[in-house]
Order: sequence, then structure tokens, then C-alpha cells
Amino acid sequence: MNKEELKSLLQQVQQNNMSIDNALKELEDFSYKDLGFAKIDNERELRNGYPEVIYCAGKTVEQVVKIIEFMLTKKNNILATRADKDTYEAVYKICPEAVYNELGRIITIRQKETKLTDNYIAIVSAGTSDLPVVEEATATAEILGNKVEKIVDVGVAGIHRLFDKLDIIRGAKVVIVVAGMEGALASVIGGLIDKPLIAVPTSVGYGTSFGGLTALLTMLNSCASGISVVNIDNGFGAAYSASMINHL
Amino acid sequence: MNKEELKSLLQQVQQNNMSIDNALKELEDFSYKDLGFAKIDNERELRNGYPEVIYCAGKTVEQVVKIIEFMLTKKNNILATRADKDTYEAVYKICPEAVYNELGRIITIRQKETKLTDNYIAIVSAGTSDLPVVEEATATAEILGNKVEKIVDVGVAGIHRLFDKLDIIRGAKVVIVVAGMEGALASVIGGLIDKPLIAVPTSVGYGTSFGGLTALLTMLNSCASGISVVNIDNGFGAAYSASMINHL
Amino acid sequence: MNKEELKSLLQQVQQNNMSIDNALKELEDFSYKDLGFAKIDNERELRNGYPEVIYCAGKTVEQVVKIIEFMLTKKNNILATRADKDTYEAVYKICPEAVYNELGRIITIRQKETKLTDNYIAIVSAGTSDLPVVEEATATAEILGNKVEKIVDVGVAGIHRLFDKLDIIRGAKVVIVVAGMEGALASVIGGLIDKPLIAVPTSVGYGTSFGGLTALLTMLNSCASGISVVNIDNGFGAAYSASMINHL
Amino acid sequence: MNKEELKSLLQQVQQNNMSIDNALKELEDFSYKDLGFAKIDNERELRNGYPEVIYCAGKTVEQVVKIIEFMLTKKNNILATRADKDTYEAVYKICPEAVYNELGRIITIRQKETKLTDNYIAIVSAGTSDLPVVEEATATAEILGNKVEKIVDVGVAGIHRLFDKLDIIRGAKVVIVVAGMEGALASVIGGLIDKPLIAVPTSVGYGTSFGGLTALLTMLNSCASGISVVNIDNGFGAAYSASMINHL
Amino acid sequence: MNKEELKSLLQQVQQNNMSIDNALKELEDFSYKDLGFAKIDNERELRNGYPEVIYCAGKTVEQVVKIIEFMLTKKNNILATRADKDTYEAVYKICPEAVYNELGRIITIRQKETKLTDNYIAIVSAGTSDLPVVEEATATAEILGNKVEKIVDVGVAGIHRLFDKLDIIRGAKVVIVVAGMEGALASVIGGLIDKPLIAVPTSVGYGTSFGGLTALLTMLNSCASGISVVNIDNGFGAAYSASMINHL
Amino acid sequence: MNKEELKSLLQQVQQNNMSIDNALKELEDFSYKDLGFAKIDNERELRNGYPEVIYCAGKTVEQVVKIIEFMLTKKNNILATRADKDTYEAVYKICPEAVYNELGRIITIRQKETKLTDNYIAIVSAGTSDLPVVEEATATAEILGNKVEKIVDVGVAGIHRLFDKLDIIRGAKVVIVVAGMEGALASVIGGLIDKPLIAVPTSVGYGTSFGGLTALLTMLNSCASGISVVNIDNGFGAAYSASMINHL
Amino acid sequence: MNKEELKSLLQQVQQNNMSIDNALKELEDFSYKDLGFAKIDNERELRNGYPEVIYCAGKTVEQVVKIIEFMLTKKNNILATRADKDTYEAVYKICPEAVYNELGRIITIRQKETKLTDNYIAIVSAGTSDLPVVEEATATAEILGNKVEKIVDVGVAGIHRLFDKLDIIRGAKVVIVVAGMEGALASVIGGLIDKPLIAVPTSVGYGTSFGGLTALLTMLNSCASGISVVNIDNGFGAAYSASMINHL
Amino acid sequence: MNKEELKSLLQQVQQNNMSIDNALKELEDFSYKDLGFAKIDNERELRNGYPEVIYCAGKTVEQVVKIIEFMLTKKNNILATRADKDTYEAVYKICPEAVYNELGRIITIRQKETKLTDNYIAIVSAGTSDLPVVEEATATAEILGNKVEKIVDVGVAGIHRLFDKLDIIRGAKVVIVVAGMEGALASVIGGLIDKPLIAVPTSVGYGTSFGGLTALLTMLNSCASGISVVNIDNGFGAAYSASMINHL
Repeated sequence: MNKEELKSLLQQVQQNNMSIDNALKELEDFSYKDLGFAKIDNERELRNGYPEVIYCAGKTVEQVVKIIEFMLTKKNNILATRADKDTYEAVYKICPEAVYNELGRIITIRQKETKLTDNYIAIVSAGTSDLPVVEEATATAEILGNKVEKIVDVGVAGIHRLFDKLDIIRGAKVVIVVAGMEGALASVIGGLIDKPLIAVPTSVGYGTSFGGLTALLTMLNSCASGISVVNIDNGFGAAYSASMINHL
Repeated sequence: MNKEELKSLLQQVQQNNMSIDNALKELEDFSYKDLGFAKIDNERELRNGYPEVIYCAGKTVEQVVKIIEFMLTKKNNILATRADKDTYEAVYKICPEAVYNELGRIITIRQKETKLTDNYIAIVSAGTSDLPVVEEATATAEILGNKVEKIVDVGVAGIHRLFDKLDIIRGAKVVIVVAGMEGALASVIGGLIDKPLIAVPTSVGYGTSFGGLTALLTMLNSCASGISVVNIDNGFGAAYSASMINHL
Repeated sequence: MNKEELKSLLQQVQQNNMSIDNALKELEDFSYKDLGFAKIDNERELRNGYPEVIYCAGKTVEQVVKIIEFMLTKKNNILATRADKDTYEAVYKICPEAVYNELGRIITIRQKETKLTDNYIAIVSAGTSDLPVVEEATATAEILGNKVEKIVDVGVAGIHRLFDKLDIIRGAKVVIVVAGMEGALASVIGGLIDKPLIAVPTSVGYGTSFGGLTALLTMLNSCASGISVVNIDNGFGAAYSASMINHL
Repeated sequence: MNKEELKSLLQQVQQNNMSIDNALKELEDFSYKDLGFAKIDNERELRNGYPEVIYCAGKTVEQVVKIIEFMLTKKNNILATRADKDTYEAVYKICPEAVYNELGRIITIRQKETKLTDNYIAIVSAGTSDLPVVEEATATAEILGNKVEKIVDVGVAGIHRLFDKLDIIRGAKVVIVVAGMEGALASVIGGLIDKPLIAVPTSVGYGTSFGGLTALLTMLNSCASGISVVNIDNGFGAAYSASMINHL
Repeated sequence: MNKEELKSLLQQVQQNNMSIDNALKELEDFSYKDLGFAKIDNERELRNGYPEVIYCAGKTVEQVVKIIEFMLTKKNNILATRADKDTYEAVYKICPEAVYNELGRIITIRQKETKLTDNYIAIVSAGTSDLPVVEEATATAEILGNKVEKIVDVGVAGIHRLFDKLDIIRGAKVVIVVAGMEGALASVIGGLIDKPLIAVPTSVGYGTSFGGLTALLTMLNSCASGISVVNIDNGFGAAYSASMINHL
Repeated sequence: MNKEELKSLLQQVQQNNMSIDNALKELEDFSYKDLGFAKIDNERELRNGYPEVIYCAGKTVEQVVKIIEFMLTKKNNILATRADKDTYEAVYKICPEAVYNELGRIITIRQKETKLTDNYIAIVSAGTSDLPVVEEATATAEILGNKVEKIVDVGVAGIHRLFDKLDIIRGAKVVIVVAGMEGALASVIGGLIDKPLIAVPTSVGYGTSFGGLTALLTMLNSCASGISVVNIDNGFGAAYSASMINHL
Repeated sequence: MNKEELKSLLQQVQQNNMSIDNALKELEDFSYKDLGFAKIDNERELRNGYPEVIYCAGKTVEQVVKIIEFMLTKKNNILATRADKDTYEAVYKICPEAVYNELGRIITIRQKETKLTDNYIAIVSAGTSDLPVVEEATATAEILGNKVEKIVDVGVAGIHRLFDKLDIIRGAKVVIVVAGMEGALASVIGGLIDKPLIAVPTSVGYGTSFGGLTALLTMLNSCASGISVVNIDNGFGAAYSASMINHL
Repeated sequence: MNKEELKSLLQQVQQNNMSIDNALKELEDFSYKDLGFAKIDNERELRNGYPEVIYCAGKTVEQVVKIIEFMLTKKNNILATRADKDTYEAVYKICPEAVYNELGRIITIRQKETKLTDNYIAIVSAGTSDLPVVEEATATAEILGNKVEKIVDVGVAGIHRLFDKLDIIRGAKVVIVVAGMEGALASVIGGLIDKPLIAVPTSVGYGTSFGGLTALLTMLNSCASGISVVNIDNGFGAAYSASMINHL
């Protein structure tokens, strides 16, 4: 339940268009719902502007299904990250509207319409191997109501590909840069734009890429200003932050 | 054999209610039993207040079974941690009373009654993915004779869920906090209670969570006082320490 | 020279209010100025919205003075970070308008008026020992034209201090959270607001705080969404990113 | 103000032995006192059982003095850790009752009598070089109202020294073990007692002791059960936890 | 070919008991044999006192078989470490005398008799899970001609088991201590004996045991003198060094 | 398209031997070709002297096949690294000329003849387990037009094997040294030659070899001069650099 | 003594233009000179093409002076790196021809003329703070007989400065790239040239730059091919390798 | 008191050549002497073959002096490591026989004659900068009664210097190799000898030498067998182990 919806409910009560009993029912588990193994944070949309998101890693398929089962009753849009195919198939059984982005390992269920932003988020990536993270970010940004422009495989080894797309990147309200290996793309783009840039290191690489640590360190130490960074492979988190900015 | 039992045996000998021969038999392997590949520490309950616990990782199924076989003759309660399903099934064959907590990967065998404490240990966890560690801690605390209150999924992303349960947490004699990812829950609870807090970092997370290292570091550096920490995913160790405190 | 100024110059030339010669002189070193040991990036304001900033660490006092000497001729506002007192004193000699924030080790010189934003950036810190980073961030945000609200010493060990200030934090367009030790403050605030949050880990702490690494890891692994992170003690970078967002 | 004191004040008001005005004055800044650069958490004793402790590292001498100046008005016992000699001397000027433990770098000011516990905390250390941490722990434990038994220099290189003192260690309600280098002492004692043990790694050592990291890792991985660990050189934290346990 | 054998061959030539041609044939590939993918160091026994040992990890089964095939022609004893079962089975086909220690993953082939030392090496281990390394060390020590005494599962959590075996340990000419987790056993034994001690950290443990790194660091920082250390799980290396010492 | 070919095309146009239309067709996608999931850098041979190389890790088999399909139309030699067998088999279906080096996990397709250098690159390795990296380097060097001399299994444990081959090594124009474990071979060779040496650490080893990190650190800290280093297991990169030098 | 000089000496002996006695004197200490605390490697120029270089760190001033004193008798050019001012002043006293590059902390003494190469080494750096390493590299390259082009302060935050100098960089026979912080410059240049590139990470930066480790990792993981790397701040090593390549 | 001396005392008592009273006085503090801040382990020589050694780092000058004062009464030889000059001067005042090795930072006091071994320990080092560790090892070995041969500055960059001294190294009963930077010398010597080798990594180096960690890792991963390792810069520990071996 977001602010608008809560306000509307209270107005209906005030104007006697809704009985106290019905309002109570609507507000049941207003704060959170205790499922025993999980407490669904129903208040989160009010506080954070978006309902709780399900992080599937480390949860059993049954737990994910039960959480979604409950959330479906709340009529929110649902986002489940790090979901493997088994999880999706179990979710699909209880909700055939569930959409699965296999590369991005992300399940989305749209239960209400979201108004799209006029501005767009540019999601730029260095190489083809970074696509899973790009997909997680894109699916997240879209269900959060953002227009997205994807520009993939423009890493610095062939920097002219990047310059070719610079206008699209500069036209965004906020830019997400996804890169593995040495992650230099974030610095180069950071030096060329005047918009906030959120950098996502990926675990693409081998040896001393240390599962994405090197790209992370590169991005944290960028000589270009205006770059902030999220966890390795955290396409979701980058899109979430970018969406907040894009909605300002 | 604990202090009570040893004292009772010596009294029986003193009062001629037990022959020297029988006493010797009872005290056979009093110090330890050498199985060739392992030396069971029979004296541990006397020294530490609880019999030796079996750490199954790195042991073959056969070794675990032989150790339990011997320990059954000593009539102690038995606790085997990090036990996979194969191990349990082999143990079950020689001892159908063995109970398996699958999530917590822990086998317990109760051979004698334990008096429950009046006070309870609160075991609080940040997220649903932390449940395996919660289960290991709970099963351990219970076989050690403690009352336990479990409060799960009250991580700081929805901190009102925590405040809702604060009375139960404050009512405990000692609190265990189980958290992965950034592990901030320990600091928040630590700032709100006046009881000892044992923090257990879990390996829940990805990228720079480094298999639980980040949560561990968070807990070690807590700005709240009164927090001490155990190894990553060490639900057993936290419960063991908490039990010692709860029995004071 | 920013976009406005460049446009104005070209219009003057078009309308014959400025001679080609004078225009050329104004545009001298338009791209960059080579001082031998440094190449001042005069074009940066056009690309990034703000002139080049001087990172003093690793530069000799003479180098910093020469760079500022040149930049003064360009009539820009000047920002020099990580400046020790000796550097400031040398700068003061050539420019008595230079202002030094000793705690934040930052020199600012205002040569043109900046329009203040209507919205403000909230800069929140966990402890008194984090003040140097708070000061660096504040001085940076202010010279970049932002209103700032500082809320210091509201770390999670006494979380009621934070709740007392929650309205001010929630009223900001973007929030900077500065914290050392275990850095849990970022997660807690992240769970309570619906605005972008930039987290700055500080090197406050000892032992396993590893000079700020622990706070950094905590922030990267936050269970709350919408948090992005900058380098340890990088108050400047956080303010720069926040300013970009605040100006959207 | 602790629970007893608050209760007594309310009783006086109820029985008209204290005017509302005087009660208000006593309760001024009840929640916290804002000094500008710091917010003193006056409520902490109520929540945590002990007033806020001052961590001096990273604070200026002036800041520490101002904080203590305010806390003196609250008539609490005061504890300031990681205080260098300059800080002490400045504190001494405003409060000659302040006591300085130079080795432990800790300032204590007793403003009210604390009832001593009947049970004692045993503080055991491996080597003479660990003494500064022992002193920090001892001074902390004592101002928190605990009896303390110190047993120093009983490291495992000469393990008979330890056995000689085992009775004193076993007699404690809770044991603190302080050790640097390889930190093996914690495991050995942990295997010999049936009381909770809090281990403090110290930065004593060189090369691969990595400033105490090795001792910390040793203690976290102890094969003996019942051990929990605090940050490197954190004698204060260990004593704080131990005091909580000792007061149960 | 060792020194004795080379000397004997030269004497036979000198005394005309061997023709130059036969001597040349015996000395064929005296320095090394090039198999294309490997160069067998035939001279090693002369230089190091023992023939080349085959490290199987990273080699294909075919490569190991071809190396052994050649070495069989040289009539040396053969030692192949880190050999999985497939490798053993392939070796068995060309040499049914090959013996496989499955726990220790080590293949030995005895082609000539080795005189046993009078003194023995004591191989002491902390826990049952350390047995694979104990086996690698034992098999190595034995084929190198040493008497061995194994004492397993005497870790410091039950230190009386160690004291019970102290006489055997003190009777050895050199002691190998094998331990995982916190590895404290090496320090304790080091403080009790006057013989060289070689410590082998094992990868037994979880979380912050970091695959044996913690035990390694413990052993390197031991407060007891006379301890030197080999790589994690390197039972072979420890036995090799110990054998050199035992043969002095 | 390399410089020669571009020049020839322009000459044909100038001399009216090629129509503008045909020239345009030849120059289609001159800069890069956008395949949606990838942007093939067609200009790379002009800038770097060699066409884009395909890094297969993290790409789906379908993606690799589509990239090669396009590159085949450009008539370049094709190099695909880190290719597993499935990838090769799919490539083979569209291009039976594709050659697979299984040990080196590398696919090469020769579409035009390369002139071989007169000088050779020496590729020297420490042990048999390093062969996969040697193969990657060799296949790369050869398709880049270099003569190669391979010298394998000459690690410092049997240093006479190295001295035996020193003349071949000294005869090379540039030397690649491939070594895992402690990687000492690079230093030893570096001290004996007067040619540039590129060192490749490999992930051969266990325990504290940390997947090649130790060999990398050894090589970076070599006391011999003239050594530069590439990423762990990066046989391709070493050969690429060496080829640049060999072609000078 | 280099190859030319040795050949010339032998010819003089052959032609009776030099007496055996004089030749012996010239060849005194031909292999190395033992100074007690050091063994000067007189043969190094023959093997490696350049005389031994003195690494001053960790040596006393007296030791450096004695080594130089001896080397002066050999009439070689002398290079001493990591020399502080005290060392230089002591060297100056015995050899006023000694030249000190203070920024690069390097002493050079020219005793014989070196023929300059026709080709040049380009030494490119990211920022002004990298100058000490640039100077070490330049002084080294020059005394080794190379022409050098320096291009400083062209980091990717203002990438147009780099493009402005691209022709000079592309004209070099080998390129050295010096960069701290995130070190992205190496990748960008690597993608734009067809010459070997040696990357030198510098310790410029703070926080997670970890004293140059981040720049090192960036360079090792570059997505551009043809880059090899030397130790942090190792301007000397980069120039030494580059000189070998430049002399091919 | 060593075994010989204890036996002699008991014999005197048995033969009535010493009164019980005198024997008791001699045996005063037989087990250990408690100085309050330290417990001197008087029994150590009996257990370990050598009296307790004083590690001065982290002890105050006063503490060291008091410890030595007591030990002088026991008529043992005294060894104090990591002693700075101030400590030595204070010791000198109470014992002018104290000898200080300034480079090795070690104080020795000979109070009784030690029989020298017939065999010698070879202490070999890579570079002049390693001399402090060589000195610590030498002084330790000598006071422990060993003959020592020092061979310094024979690092692998000029490997012929090593081969020149190989006979001396091979003649030793046990070899200590001291090396910093990449530490390759240990592997090379390990491949050439048939005696136990104890490797000491030193903190000589910069950048990725990480204060000796790289040399340590090199030595732990040596491809040559028979090498064991001690802590960084631990010349004392290596000599202590070597002395045990040399006395076998």
C-alpha cells in the first residue's frame, strides 16, 4: 500500500464511503505479516516508495512460493531476484502472469499499472559477458516504472563504440555502468557526462579479477567525480537507486 | 559422566552399595576412549559441563557412526553438527531415536532427561535465508537444556518488525543475533538491551559479503557495547556460549 | 567556462559585441592548459558541469599554488581537497580570499556567485570522530551550490537520537550517510527513507575496522535498497554525486 | 540516570516530595544532550544498564573535555577509553578526581558508589606485552562494579604456569582471555573450564600476526566450545560483556 | 641413482667389471629424461637424496602413467601424491605392485628395499578430520625409510589426551604436528618438547578458517620456539623435511 | 581489415579499379558491427594490429557462434579463448576449418595466410601441470604469426634441466615464462638473459598458492630486472604482448 | 664489462697489445667482487646487457657508498634507486659527478658515453601526483641509452588531453603508462595503439586504493590486449623492460 | 637449570655433598618466578633445552631490565630479541657484559660456557638489505652453541655467486635461507641440497612485497622439497629450529 492508496482509504472512511470494518480488513497486517519463517514488510512501500523485494538466494522454493502467495493478496507488483528456474516454475503454478527473465534470474509480476517516467535511465555495459547483470538491472528498472535505454558491449578496448553512443548516454537523467574485468568503463563515462552515475562491478573475469573485486575497487577509486558504487553483480540495487533518482 | 553422577558413584562405593569391580567398569575409559581414528573425551562433561560434541564435516560416515556407537554406551545426550543426510541415515540405523534437523544439519539423541532453565535464550535473525544457522543454534540450545524464543526475519530494512518484538528480546537472559549480508542487526539490538549479546555472522549474501566475512567484521566493530562474536555460521558455538551464560 | 558562459560569448561574437581577437583570448586554452607538470582541464565544466577540482595529496605545495594561480585567471570557483595547512598558507599568500576548513582539509575560493538549490542535502553522521569527512562533504556541497542540513552523532548505539531527526532526513532530496566502525547507520536510514542515499565509510575505528574497509563492506552489502557507496573517507565524492542529484 | 534513580524520582513526585519543576530540571536532556559536535545519550543507562562511554580516538581534546564537562553534571561515573596523556591532562584540569591508567590509556571518574559483585571476572593474559589490553579491561570491569582477578603471562609456551592458576580461573563466573601472536591460550583455557569465555586478540606480534588478525582468527576457530570473541585490542568491550554476564 | 649406486658403478668400470658400453647404458638419461610433456629429473636422488616425486594434480592420467612407466625402468621407489582413484587404477594396470592410500591420496611403489631408521618420527594430529593429511605424511615418511609413530585426535579441547601421549612424542627425533581449525596444538606441543617440530596446517574448518589459512597463521606466530611450517595440507612436505632430519 | 588492406582498397578506388559502391560494401560496418548483444570492433586490426579476439567465458554458445559467423564474413583469422568443448562443437558445425586446442581451450580459424617471423618466442614452463597455459600461449602466438620454441618442465627444483636449454632461451627475441606454485623460474631466467621476459603465473598449486596469486606476487617482486607480468593463467595475453615485441 | 669490451680485451691479448698481467688485472673480480656485506655482480652486463643496479632501500648509507666506490673503479655507468637525500650527499662526496633526481629518488653517474636509440619510449602518466614514478622511469630509461617522450597528466577524467597527445604515443616503439587511483589509463591507451605497453601502478590514492593495489589489479585485468605490468611504483623496472624492447 | 645441572644437584644431595636447605635454595622458583607483570619460566631449559628468551617488543624498558635482573641470578645465558638501543643501554647499566648486535637488534649475555657443535649451520641470504635478519639468526645460533657459516648477497639475479658457494652450503648440517622480495632463493637452494632447509622471509621490498608476505608465500609453495618456513623476519626462530636440528 503506497501513500496515495492509504490517503484514499482514509478519505473513504472520513466520507463514510467505507465502513470501519472494511477499512480494518484492508489494513490487516498493515505493518507486517508474520508467515512464521518470514515477516513480510507491508509498510515498506509507505516508507521506501516500493514494496518489499524477494531475495531468493538461500530461501527454499517453498518459502518463496508462500511469500509470493501472500503478496499476491496485497495487489502489489512483485519482484523476486536471484531466482533459479525451479523457483520460477513453482511460482508460475500459482501465478501464470509471472514473467521470468532467465539471463537476469528475475521474476516479475505486474498487478497494477505503473506510470512510466518521461526521463530514461541509460544502462551501459562493457562486454557481452556482463549481460546477466544488465538484464537484472533492466527488469528491475522497468517494473519500478522507468524508461530504460540499454547500450551493451562498449568497453574501452574499442572506445569508439562508446563515443558513438555518447549522445544517448548524455541524454539520460541517470546512468548505470555495468563492467567486469578491470571496470575502466565507469571512469571513462564519468569523465564525459554531467549526470549521476551508478557503477556495478560484475564477476566477469578470471584470476586476479577475484570474482568482481577488482572492478569494484576500480570503480571506488575512479579519478572521475560523480560515481557511486553498489555490490558486485548487484544490478537490482543499481536500478533501485537509479529509479529513485529518475523519479525525483 | 557429569559431576553429580561421579559423586553418586563414589558415594555408592563408600557406602558399599557398589563393588569396586562394578565401579571400575563404570569408570572404564574414564579419561578418554581410543577408537584408533579418534579419542572420545569422556572426561569433557566433568571439565566443561557437557559431553564431547561430534563435528561431522571431514569425517567419513563410518567414523561418525562408530563414535556415536561408543557414546551411546555412555548414556549421554549426543549432539552431532554439520551432518549431512547420508550420515543421519546411517546413524538412524543404529539408533532410531536419533532426531535430524535437516535445515540445521544437526543430529540429536536424548538418552537422559535435561532440566529446562527458567530463563530463556532469545535467538533473533535478520532474514529468512539465515534460518539454517538459527536451527543449528536452536537445536543446540535445547539439547543443552535451555528454553528458547525464536524471532526471525526482523532485519533492519524493516526495523519496525524488530521493535514489535523488543519486549521478548529484552526479557531473555542472553540474546543470540544471527545475520548475514551487512549484519547490522547486532549493533541495533546491542544498543537497545542490557543483556549479553552473542552475534553469529552468516554466509548469506553475495559478492563482497565474502561468505560471511563482512557480517563478521560488522559485528566485531559494533559501536554498541556488550557484543561478542563467534565464527561464521557457527550457530552451535553461539548456543553453547549462550547456554553457559543462561545456566549461571 | 560553463555552457551558459560559452553560449553568451558566442552570441556576443555573432552580434559583433565582441571582436574575434577578444573571443580568441577568452577561449585561450579552451580545451586544457599545459603547465608542464599538469594539464588543467578547462573544458571540464562544459562536460561535467563543474570545473576541475584539485586533489592535493601527492602534489608539492608549489604545484598546487601554480595550478591555483592559473585557475584564478579563469574566474572559476576553486576547490582543493586533502590540503594540509602548509598548502593553505601558501595559497593564502596569492589569494587571501581562500577559505580553509581545517577539519575537512579543504580549500575553497569563490570567484563567482552560485545560485543555491531550493532542496537540501542531508549529511548524517554516526559519531563525533566522523566529523572531518562530514566537513569535507559539507564544504564541497556548499561550493557546488547546495543547501545542506548536517545531523551528527546519531549512530545506532543510541538510535533514538536518529529517530528524533528523521523528519529532517526524510525532507532532503538526497541523503549522505557518513559512518566508520561497523557503518550500520547507512542500512538503518536506508530502510526508513524513500530518497537516494550515498554512503561514505570512514576510517574511524581500530583493529578489524581495517581503516574503513569494514564500514565500506557493510554499506555495500546493505539489506536496505537504494544505497550506493563511495571510497573510504571520500566526503568530496559523496557530495559531488549528491549535488548532481540535488540539481536534477 | 539508571532505572532505580528514575523510579525514585517518580516516587518523590508522586508523594509530593519533589516539585514538578525540580523533576523537570532533573529530567532535562533526559533523552540526549546535543553539544553540536556530539549528542550525549543520557538514556543509555536506562536501556543498556550503563551510561555512555567516551571513545577518545578521533576526537579532539576539546571535544572530549566538553563531553566530560557535561557528563559531570549528570553525576554518573565516567569512562573514557583510548585517551592519550594530553587528553587526560586537560580532563584533570576540570576534574582532579579523574584517574588515569596510563598503560591502559583509560580515564575513570567515580561520582557515585558502585556495589561490587560477589563473583569475580578472571582476566588472563598470555604475555607481558599484552598488559595494556589487560589494564583497559581491568579498569573497565572495575568501574562497572566487578571484582577482578588478574593472571598474567601464562601463555602456552610455558603451560605449567597456567595449570598453577587453574583454580582461580575455574572459580570465576566469567573468564576473559587476552592474547596476541597465535592466541592459542584461549583454546587451551576453553577446553578446561565450564564458564563463558570472552577472548580478546591483541596486536602483539610481528610479520604475519598482521596486527592481531592472526590471534583473532585463532580465537574464532577454536576447537574448544564456549568461546566468543571481540575486536582486536578491545579490552573495554570484553570487560563490558563480561560485566553483563557477571551481573546476571 | 643415489650416491652409493653411482660410486659402485664407477668402481665396477675402474675394475673392469663393467664395460664402458654397459656403463653408458646404465647412465643413459643420467641427468634427465625428456618425455616431451615432462623432463624426469634422474639426477635428483644424487642432489637431494631422494628421486623425483610425482605431483599428480593438474596432470592427466595419461601423463602420470607415462612418467611412472619411465621411472619403473630406473628401479627407484616411486611416490605419487594428490592422486585420485582413476589415476591409481591406471597405474595399477601397468604396475600391480602399486599401493594406494585412499585417504591420503598417495601411490607408492617399492622397487628396492629401504633401510629403516632407528629413530622415529612422531606424527601427531588434532582431530579425526585431519586424517587425510596424516596419511599423506605417514606414507611419505615410510617410503623414505622412517619409522613412524602416529598419535591422532589429541587436540587441545581435551588436552589430557595429549599429555597421555607425551612420552611417545618426546621420544621422537622430530615431530610433525597436523592441525586444522585454530591449529593451537603446534604451540602447545612446541612448549613441551626439545626436538624440532614441523607444523602442517590443514584445511579442516569452516568460515574464517579460510581453507587452512588460520591454522597456518597460528603456526607461523607460535609463541613457542622451534617450530617451522609447511604449506596447508602439505603432509608430504612435512614428512620429507622430517625424514631429512630423522636421517641426520 | 588491416592497414595494408585499407590502403590497397583506397588505391583501387583512386585508380578507378573499384567502384564507389563496391568500396562502400567492403567498408560496411567499418567501425563496428552491432549484433544486439555484442558490438564487433571491426576497426581493431587498424588500431591494434590484430582483429578482435573472442573471450568465450560468460558468453552463451549461441553468442559465440553468432559472433564467429559474422567475423567469418570479414575474412580475418579468428581466435576464441577459454572455449569449452561444447562451444567448439557448435563452431565446428558452421566452420569445419576451425581447429581446437583442447588443453589450451582455444579455437583458431585461419582465413588468410600470415607471414611467419624470423625470430622466435621462447615459451618456457616450470612443470607439466602448467601445460594448458603453455598451449594457450602457443596457439595464440602462432596465429599471430610468430615462430615459437617450447621448453617445458624446467622448474627450479631441477635447475640443470633449465641450464641445458639456456641457449635456446637466450636465442629468442622475447621470452615467456609460465609457472605456478612459487613461480621462481621467472626470476632465475630473468637473471640469465638480456631479452624482455613476460611472466605468466598459473593457478597450479594448492593451499597458499591461492589460485596463482602467490606465483603472481613472486613475479611482480622479482629481484631480476626486465620482467613484466600478466594476469594469472593469461597465456593469451602474454603471447599477444610477446608477439607485438617479436614483430618490432 | 660488456660483450664489446670483453671481446676487445681478448683481441688485444691475442695481438700482443696487452700483457697477460694487465689483462688479468682488468679481469680481476670478473665474476663478482665480495665486499663482505655484498657481492657485486660484475658479470651482469655480460649476461643482462646492463651492470648491476643498486637498490638503496634497506641498505645503510655506508653500504651504498662502499658499493659505489667499488663500481667506480669498473668505469661503468651507475644507477642507484630509492636513494634518499642523505645517501646522495654521501655519494656526492666521493663522486661529485653523481646526479640526483630528487623527485625520482634516483642517483646516476655517467662514466662512459651511451649511444642513444633512434626510437623513443613514451612515458605517459595519469596525474601530477604520479610524477615521482615518471621521474624514476625517465632517469632509468635515459641512462640505459633511450630517447624518452614524457606526456604527463592525461588521465581519463579529461580524456581529450590524452587524444591530443595520441600521435606522440603511437609514434613510440614501446609505451610506459604510469597511473594510480583506479589506473584506467592503461586500458584506454592499450585499446588505441599497436605497440607493447608496460603498465606501472602507483601508490597514489587513498582508502581502497590500498597503496597501489587497486591500480595494479586494474592493469592486470585490462580488457585491452598487449599490456604487461610491473610492481607498484616500479618506474625503474618498467623502464628497464622498455629499454630492452626499445633496443631490439 | 638444564638436565645435567639438575641431575648433578640431585646427586650431590644423595651423596650428602649438599644440604637439603641449600638444595631448596638452588631450586627456589624451580617452576617459574612471578615478577607480577611476568612469570619467568625457569623450567623451560629442562623442557625445551634452552632457557626462556625475552621478546622485547611491547615491553617497557623497565620490564626488560627487571626480567634480566632476575635471570642473571639463575646464571643462564640470556638472549633478548627485538631490543632497541634504549633497552640495551639500560641493560648495560646492570650488566656490562651484555653484548648488543645493533643490526640484529639482539642482546646476548654469556654467563656460562657453551660447547660448540662440530657441524655448522649455513645462513645464506639473498641481498644486503636482508642483513638485519641474518644478524638476528647468527647471534641466536651462536649463543645456542652452534658454529655458523654466513653467505650473504647470493640472490638469484646473479646466480653464479650462489654456485660459487655451493660447497659450503652443502657442507652444513642444516641450512637457513633468508630472502625478501620474491624469495626465490629458497627454492633454488632447496633443489640443490640434501639437508633440511629453514626459510626466513624478510620484509625487504616494496609495493606488492606486502612487508614480506610475498616472500613467505613463495617459500611455502616451493616446488623443491624439504623446505619449512618461519614467520617474516624471524631470524631468531629459524636459528632456534636449526640449532635443535644441528644438535641432533
